[in-house]
Amino acid sequence: MSTFHAIIPAGGAGTRLWPLSRKARPKFLLDLEGTGRTLIQQTWDRMLPLASPEHVHVVSGAAHAGAIAAQLPELVNLLLEPSPRDSMPAIGLAAAIIERADPDAVVGSFAADHRIPDPDRFADAVREAIAVAEQGYVVTIGIEPTEPSTAFGYIAAGEPLEDFASARAVRTFVEKPDEETARGYLASGDFVWNAGMFVARASVLLDSLARFQPDLAAGLRAIAAAWGSPAFVAELERTWPTLTTIAIDHAVAEPVAAEGGMAVVPATFGWDDLGDFASIAPLGSSPDVLWVDADGVARGQDGVQIAVLGLRNVAVVQTDDAVLVLDLAQSQRVKEIVAQLPGLDRDDLL
Amino acid sequence: MSTFHAIIPAGGAGTRLWPLSRKARPKFLLDLEGTGRTLIQQTWDRMLPLASPEHVHVVSGAAHAGAIAAQLPELVNLLLEPSPRDSMPAIGLAAAIIERADPDAVVGSFAADHRIPDPDRFADAVREAIAVAEQGYVVTIGIEPTEPSTAFGYIAAGEPLEDFASARAVRTFVEKPDEETARGYLASGDFVWNAGMFVARASVLLDSLARFQPDLAAGLRAIAAAWGSPAFVAELERTWPTLTTIAIDHAVAEPVAAEGGMAVVPATFGWDDLGDFASIAPLGSSPDVLWVDADGVARGQDGVQIAVLGLRNVAVVQTDDAVLVLDLAQSQRVKEIVAQLPGLDRDDLL
Repeated sequence: MSTFHAIIPAGGAGTRLWPLSRKARPKFLLDLEGTGRTLIQQTWDRMLPLASPEHVHVVSGAAHAGAIAAQLPELVNLLLEPSPRDSMPAIGLAAAIIERADPDAVVGSFAADHRIPDPDRFADAVREAIAVAEQGYVVTIGIEPTEPSTAFGYIAAGEPLEDFASARAVRTFVEKPDEETARGYLASGDFVWNAGMFVARASVLLDSLARFQPDLAAGLRAIAAAWGSPAFVAELERTWPTLTTIAIDHAVAEPVAAEGGMAVVPATFGWDDLGDFASIAPLGSSPDVLWVDADGVARGQDGVQIAVLGLRNVAVVQTDDAVLVLDLAQSQRVKEIVAQLPGLDRDDLL
Repeated sequence: MSTFHAIIPAGGAGTRLWPLSRKARPKFLLDLEGTGRTLIQQTWDRMLPLASPEHVHVVSGAAHAGAIAAQLPELVNLLLEPSPRDSMPAIGLAAAIIERADPDAVVGSFAADHRIPDPDRFADAVREAIAVAEQGYVVTIGIEPTEPSTAFGYIAAGEPLEDFASARAVRTFVEKPDEETARGYLASGDFVWNAGMFVARASVLLDSLARFQPDLAAGLRAIAAAWGSPAFVAELERTWPTLTTIAIDHAVAEPVAAEGGMAVVPATFGWDDLGDFASIAPLGSSPDVLWVDADGVARGQDGVQIAVLGLRNVAVVQTDDAVLVLDLAQSQRVKEIVAQLPGLDRDDLL
């Protein structure tokens, strides 16, 4: 059995959850479910049955280093990217560092800010993905769709792989569809949601990247070669700004799928990317909320009484410096509010 | 010319403006227009062209004495009722005290929490009402309706009085009508809104009350007889709880109208009782409000950014301990929210 390393890229402001999420307090640092564990803490918890703590690697920006260290006291591998360059450089750098220590290691990347209420079934899916990855595949874990969502990309699954319980070849990745297309995907039974979970041998991931983005792979391996030496910071700061800004989906998953080298493990565990207030709504409201001929979701500070009268399907969000009220059906537009704050001289609220 | 005394009953929680208004911070103490003057301060300002400061009498509860004294530093006549017994005992006690000093004095009562943007036209109407009152009438100032409102009582005007510019006899007072009836009133041109403004000689007011509510008039005159003596507080505390709780409309205005002794001065100055958030809406929002495909009214603390997305005709009200969001068309129902607070163990928010 190969050693498994978990990579957790912790980035993204989550502007559609403003004013809960801020630049300095991104979504992964929030306890949106009121369980006492933030999203990155829950992500950490999900990894422990699969990887030992010293094999969990968080990649984030320097601005969040303090908060991440405080929330994850057992974390030893915190890699700080000098600037955000999308998911491929972040995941690839961690994978390149792991590759140098153990080329046969299997790495898996999982977002820091998704919700997965059933960690046991998640672990089962990851274990199958690891076994498939040991055969040389790049593996993704796709979520069996429960509705014709237009908010997610889809993965078209092909033939089942021999010797595995549920893994299938990947035919192709498709972007967020329109609703009619999404209905067709759902009806076919051959499409799953792309939840951004990728599992592969570290060497397979980097070698694949080297075929499609050779400069990026070379840059990441050059930085990784300096890891642990006094030259590391200089090498990182010199090379990182030259790396292509690109998502792992485009850099590796799609071209590898076109070659026939991608597999997918379809998974039925509950999953949500908590991308907007509509997706928060099912998690419930703060305790101090009174609805009179009204419904939706309301989140406020302890002790602040929120009352809603005569409005359906609304979100009310109160923080110490802002109040947002919206029609939940228009949740995706919260970023328009955030975009206007600088013009109002309220950069302090970003 | 008689001496004119202004009586300002300052009571009423204004629960339909919660969470702006509270038991300890009733509507009359609020600066709802953002002018820097609260409603009771503006009421005071409107009286000064008509009555000297020592002839302005505020009647309120002990709980508000400190705030009123702080807001009206020139006020000398602050009468504290031991408990709220509606408007007749409050106005009648002030009138009885004035009557003892000057039976020919004309008194006028005006709510502490109404909005009248044109104080000059208001003063003109009061001056005509004073002149009519000197003839022995009980006079009300009625507001020419601008819409078929169902939120106000109406006054049916009769024949014009000789020798006066606009005063007319009162035929009758009618309660808040349904909308169809209100349309008829508006079309007839003979109906004005009852704004609770009453002007009469002190002796006429008390003598009228003595005919219809003899015990109440006797009780008020007994308390007034002790005014200024060491026995006053004991007399007030003994007699006040025995007084009938009743509005001046029912105790005097309606029965006097039935006798033909009421007159009305129809007035065209702007007037609003600011009774709910729908009536606050035209006054505008706080500065820090962002509307995106949304409109209505929003009030918040300085520095708190309020944002509303995709909702029409809503009110958003933020204070340090509560947030209320409502459909403005249901403004009258805010009292239902307030009624539920004790059951939520939030008496602190009343």
